Amino acid sequence: MGVPGEVNVGLMGLGVVGGGVAAALLERPETLCGKIGRPVKLKKVLVRDLAKPRNSNLPSSLLTTDPEEILSDPDIHVLVEVIGGTQPAADYLEAGLSAGKHVVTANKEVMAKNGPELLSLARRNRVNLLFEASVGGGIPIIGCLMNELVANDIHSVRGIINGTTNYILTRMAHHGTDFSQALKEAQERGYAEADPTNDVEGIDAVYKLAILASLAFHHPFNPEDVYRQGISSLESQDFRYAQELGYAIKSLAIATLEDGVIQARVYPALVPVDNMLAKVDGVYNAVEVEGSLCGKVLFHGMGAGREPTTSAVVGDVIEVARRLTLQPGSPADGSPGTGEEASLRTPGPTEDGAARTVESIDGLMLKYYLRLKVADQPGVLAQIAHILGDGEISMASVIQKDTNLAEQTAEIVITTHPAREASVQASLRSMANLEVVRGVKSLLRIEE
Amino acid sequence: MGVPGEVNVGLMGLGVVGGGVAAALLERPETLCGKIGRPVKLKKVLVRDLAKPRNSNLPSSLLTTDPEEILSDPDIHVLVEVIGGTQPAADYLEAGLSAGKHVVTANKEVMAKNGPELLSLARRNRVNLLFEASVGGGIPIIGCLMNELVANDIHSVRGIINGTTNYILTRMAHHGTDFSQALKEAQERGYAEADPTNDVEGIDAVYKLAILASLAFHHPFNPEDVYRQGISSLESQDFRYAQELGYAIKSLAIATLEDGVIQARVYPALVPVDNMLAKVDGVYNAVEVEGSLCGKVLFHGMGAGREPTTSAVVGDVIEVARRLTLQPGSPADGSPGTGEEASLRTPGPTEDGAARTVESIDGLMLKYYLRLKVADQPGVLAQIAHILGDGEISMASVIQKDTNLAEQTAEIVITTHPAREASVQASLRSMANLEVVRGVKSLLRIEE
Repeated sequence: MGVPGEVNVGLMGLGVVGGGVAAALLERPETLCGKIGRPVKLKKVLVRDLAKPRNSNLPSSLLTTDPEEILSDPDIHVLVEVIGGTQPAADYLEAGLSAGKHVVTANKEVMAKNGPELLSLARRNRVNLLFEASVGGGIPIIGCLMNELVANDIHSVRGIINGTTNYILTRMAHHGTDFSQALKEAQERGYAEADPTNDVEGIDAVYKLAILASLAFHHPFNPEDVYRQGISSLESQDFRYAQELGYAIKSLAIATLEDGVIQARVYPALVPVDNMLAKVDGVYNAVEVEGSLCGKVLFHGMGAGREPTTSAVVGDVIEVARRLTLQPGSPADGSPGTGEEASLRTPGPTEDGAARTVESIDGLMLKYYLRLKVADQPGVLAQIAHILGDGEISMASVIQKDTNLAEQTAEIVITTHPAREASVQASLRSMANLEVVRGVKSLLRIEE
Repeated sequence: MGVPGEVNVGLMGLGVVGGGVAAALLERPETLCGKIGRPVKLKKVLVRDLAKPRNSNLPSSLLTTDPEEILSDPDIHVLVEVIGGTQPAADYLEAGLSAGKHVVTANKEVMAKNGPELLSLARRNRVNLLFEASVGGGIPIIGCLMNELVANDIHSVRGIINGTTNYILTRMAHHGTDFSQALKEAQERGYAEADPTNDVEGIDAVYKLAILASLAFHHPFNPEDVYRQGISSLESQDFRYAQELGYAIKSLAIATLEDGVIQARVYPALVPVDNMLAKVDGVYNAVEVEGSLCGKVLFHGMGAGREPTTSAVVGDVIEVARRLTLQPGSPADGSPGTGEEASLRTPGPTEDGAARTVESIDGLMLKYYLRLKVADQPGVLAQIAHILGDGEISMASVIQKDTNLAEQTAEIVITTHPAREASVQASLRSMANLEVVRGVKSLLRIEE
């Protein structure tokens, strides 16, 4: 039985973020209490290895390797999960919600893949499931979509939501570094993992975008419905050419809702240099929300790291604890949350009742940037132009670049007027089959 | 007696913003209901003139010229005030809170001047007083300081929070327009009022900064404690020289907390061109919050106008209505809110218990930009340098500009290394007394 009035927290995971969360909950308890109106106590911490040396003031008596010491303890009101990955995290979240615990998680993968089921479980159990830290680190984008911007119909969410790729792209743009070198630097600085696939292939951003899209458009969203293109095939000349054309290259995550149709994509794109998103450099993230009333609101900040993620996790813990304070009699007696009130922060997928469908990006109308390696001989452009013409794609500019005398090849950079995605894709396949085309090096969308 | 479960709103003011709020509350009631969990009904609207033709679908039966029809109606749970100005708005807010109504206001002047008293009244009456629309229009800065960023100790708030001056400065910077012409354009576009004093002299920004500082630092903040300098004395050559030095000129509102000392100022300042704030153009606003965990988070969006302000007001109405939904039995029976819960969103001034003092900016250490009109003769610079040296102000650069042969004058632009504000001010007074100094044209701080 907890001390009356105390909110007890069980923390799962004591890695970089978990260490930050534990420190924030243990340091200056009176400040935390002042913000909530009652004390918050870290009661138990799940770790994998009790013997691992830890650089923290955490009493070792709090540590456990048995998840049941948190999941089955009725005195623990709030479960904080910062383990990451799908399993066992998803099982723990499900068990916690089923036991009537409020849950705060930083887990983008679980929220993207199992979010609708977990949110539904939270609603059935009348508990909160908060996940501010799953997207954008210290940027309060999730809370703002649920609360401050709630009066709006959201038309689009566009952003730079993976700091690793943004760091790599910034290095490539500003220093002419090639991809593998920029990746190596990111790994040396701890911005990229040993296996960088999730980041550089856009998988991480797809998870985050799925979460944002489901919140923004009140529609359960499957990460597999997000079109995805990574950044590993970009070459340094793409940055040079883009700059000459007045653009930066940024890996954008974009979800739009128009006439009931949701489209979502993650890919490197050309962004006009005077656009705010073009100015987001290094490991910074930014998300621009366009709403029916607020217009375009941009959030910019640190998208990852111990402190920014701790800001989001502890913000959610305070929010949950404040809401527990609202429930008379709970959790003073240690009973799980029972009020309808608590579930209110847990967004329903269809709260506005409007029909939504998710479509592929085939129907997108965008301008495109193509870089082709072609035989350096007369008539090549005519063949390419013919294919584009057949696809009803009209060229805005063509520049021949970087002739390679030894190979007898040249690079051609083409930008198009707005064209249909499916048509551009089909034309590219045709071009790749031309004898004179030695390689389709880049296909980038221009997002204006 | 209202329909059980209905949240009734009384709206005071039907100007530009009031019209937007009324439209948002009347259109698509089912969407609003979906977001809250119960219907919201606009029950009464206070106007000055019943006969005034109105471009809205508002039933004339809702209109009244008698504030008591809202203030004394126990069925009205939420009072929305968008009249602006101190009186009678402040009296209405006080009466509404005293009657146990939740209050949503867009009134920056009242919140800056009477905020602490009104918030205290709200707490005593256990009702919410929300004011997202008072600062930053569609930018959710108030809510984020109270909620999403609550885990942080806030070190500073810096921003561009007056769209009128930012429009004028943008015109002056990008088009070489002089101040009076840029002001005229702003007035023609409806961005500046006939009497532009409140905007161009920084008074509006001072109100907003006082609100932000009180929230960020948990300390009641008097707008008179904000150092204030307007933009009306800026000349087009300041923008030219600033650009040559690598800076933009922006009217910044800055409040900092360091070692328990709060300092706050509103003035035009030089901002490095690659700083995000330098890229905020036109009527856009931006606020950068630096927190102990989140680091620097920047919010960028429309700071004024019917729709963005409506986004904030209606967001607050939904927040209040959701919280009413949390209170069992209220307002289904029309009784005013009574729960401690409701007051939680109403921030206490000293929730972290730490001591704070507010100081003048005399002790600031900044770099400065000075533009002087001087006699075009030998030895002038020596006299100026002597005064600066006496004040322990060291020069970073000196450029002589724009010699006027007829007047036999020249302009000197000086930038300094970090120096103490009080010392710079004293030196300027000494310089102004020099026979060779014909005018101190500009004193601008460099904010890096």
